[in-house]
Amino acid sequence: MNRVHNDNFAARLDAAAHKVATLLATLLSQSPLEGETVRPKHLILAMRHGVLNGGKRLRPFLVLETARLLDGPEDAALRVAAALECIHCYSLIHDDLPAMDDDDLRRGQPTVHIAFDEATAILAGDALLTLAFDILSSPGTELPDRAKLALINQLARASGVGGMVGGQALDLHAERVTPDEAGIVRLQAMKTGALLRYACAAGAIAGGADAEALARMTRFGEIIGLAFQLADDLLDVTSDAATLGKAAGKDAGRGKATLVSLHGIDAARCRLDGLVEEAALMLEPFGARAATLTEAAGFIASRDR
Amino acid sequence: MNRVHNDNFAARLDAAAHKVATLLATLLSQSPLEGETVRPKHLILAMRHGVLNGGKRLRPFLVLETARLLDGPEDAALRVAAALECIHCYSLIHDDLPAMDDDDLRRGQPTVHIAFDEATAILAGDALLTLAFDILSSPGTELPDRAKLALINQLARASGVGGMVGGQALDLHAERVTPDEAGIVRLQAMKTGALLRYACAAGAIAGGADAEALARMTRFGEIIGLAFQLADDLLDVTSDAATLGKAAGKDAGRGKATLVSLHGIDAARCRLDGLVEEAALMLEPFGARAATLTEAAGFIASRDR
Repeated sequence: MNRVHNDNFAARLDAAAHKVATLLATLLSQSPLEGETVRPKHLILAMRHGVLNGGKRLRPFLVLETARLLDGPEDAALRVAAALECIHCYSLIHDDLPAMDDDDLRRGQPTVHIAFDEATAILAGDALLTLAFDILSSPGTELPDRAKLALINQLARASGVGGMVGGQALDLHAERVTPDEAGIVRLQAMKTGALLRYACAAGAIAGGADAEALARMTRFGEIIGLAFQLADDLLDVTSDAATLGKAAGKDAGRGKATLVSLHGIDAARCRLDGLVEEAALMLEPFGARAATLTEAAGFIASRDR
Repeated sequence: MNRVHNDNFAARLDAAAHKVATLLATLLSQSPLEGETVRPKHLILAMRHGVLNGGKRLRPFLVLETARLLDGPEDAALRVAAALECIHCYSLIHDDLPAMDDDDLRRGQPTVHIAFDEATAILAGDALLTLAFDILSSPGTELPDRAKLALINQLARASGVGGMVGGQALDLHAERVTPDEAGIVRLQAMKTGALLRYACAAGAIAGGADAEALARMTRFGEIIGLAFQLADDLLDVTSDAATLGKAAGKDAGRGKATLVSLHGIDAARCRLDGLVEEAALMLEPFGARAATLTEAAGFIASRDR
């Protein structure tokens, strides 16, 4: 596994983050679009607070790199990436609420319900979730109608009751009833895995991938999702709040079961290495063109070192 | 204005409510769809609690009747109606939360956060909002791709930051800063008007309407929205909790400005009669075929008598 990332990779990640943040800032302007009345200023400010917060934009990066790998149009891929980031950011806003994870800090900044209020945080999340589907369905996203409908439908499935939201619901339950290993894997595949899997599938759809390439990139995204969660669980036990920018050791403090708590740190790191290898294997047919995505897998896995 | 509705109209309304509730019950099954992992049981139960609650299904009724007026396919219109009802029901679940309107009762039953818990209510709302876009984008909704994208995009605009959610944000602010008449009308056009307008526009799109018929039905929906809100404001001052099935006099108790508090009950009723006439005018080109929709306008306006 490549533990030291070259400057080129870091530069690509930064460039993608900058591009998607610029587009998100435009999409979150106060000017109403056709079919809208007004966009209330404090709601737009709350949405911007939850979105324009210096995130790494890992999911958008995966969309853009996958689309690039398949020679997809960059402008359209960027809009797909922005839509996905809206979903990711809404989920963080809602997860941080007092009734959920009750977090006051996110990336070292006050969470939306602290910076604004709880009602505004709920509504900002709802509006971001809705905006994602606005972006994908809008004529401004220049892709074939059939591709746009696939992007919308897969995003809904990845993020709804049988995906991310369902995973969060299982997670809240998991604090009461400790799940077994299969339960943990399923919960994580839904809560964090589904959107990472979608990022790669969506990039492939935007890139006009054939069935084989789509299946391959979807599986790549799935592996990335598993690696991401495992690295996150490792971070939770090995890092501290200053490094994380949010409360550390929360899972352990709550007695929440993870693969790390079940099998230990060494076994988890070994599994992580295996996932990075499997990810690279998935990209083999694309050759050297897939170098950045291969590095992305390593980057995701090594966040705890 | 037609204050006594004939049995035929009531029967049509009931039949539509039954059809859409049956479809919603199917859509809210526990079996995961393609692209979903599992649907957590308690989340599905919370979603069902918020949706399958004996609502009048006015918005679905308007979708179905408008589509029927334009000879649209009933199965597809029913799915559009169900998607819209998911949006309406999610908004009620979130509006009822302690941080928002803090309501314990809805149609005489405990609200979702009372019957379950706050976190589950937030997630059930999020999942229903997402499900709406799943339904519209799914291959099961048999309409041309272009029509489906229009339905999705207009729904996102009607229900997002510049529509329903924005209206709720303005409403929460309105309790602090009393808006003027233009502000009240704008707030209401967003908070409740946008989805009723969408119901008629969506029925027209599902019915393959040309630009003129679409504009006419969209305007009809807009008028219906204004009438609905005015009737609601009248209900708030003239009714009691037993009739409403929820707390009455809340707006007045909070000192919230409405057109009724501004101009009085008689002026509001007069304005309401004018709106019903305007609605009928909008339907004139459709002749006798539009009788049910004409009656719908009267029904909506006369809920306070």
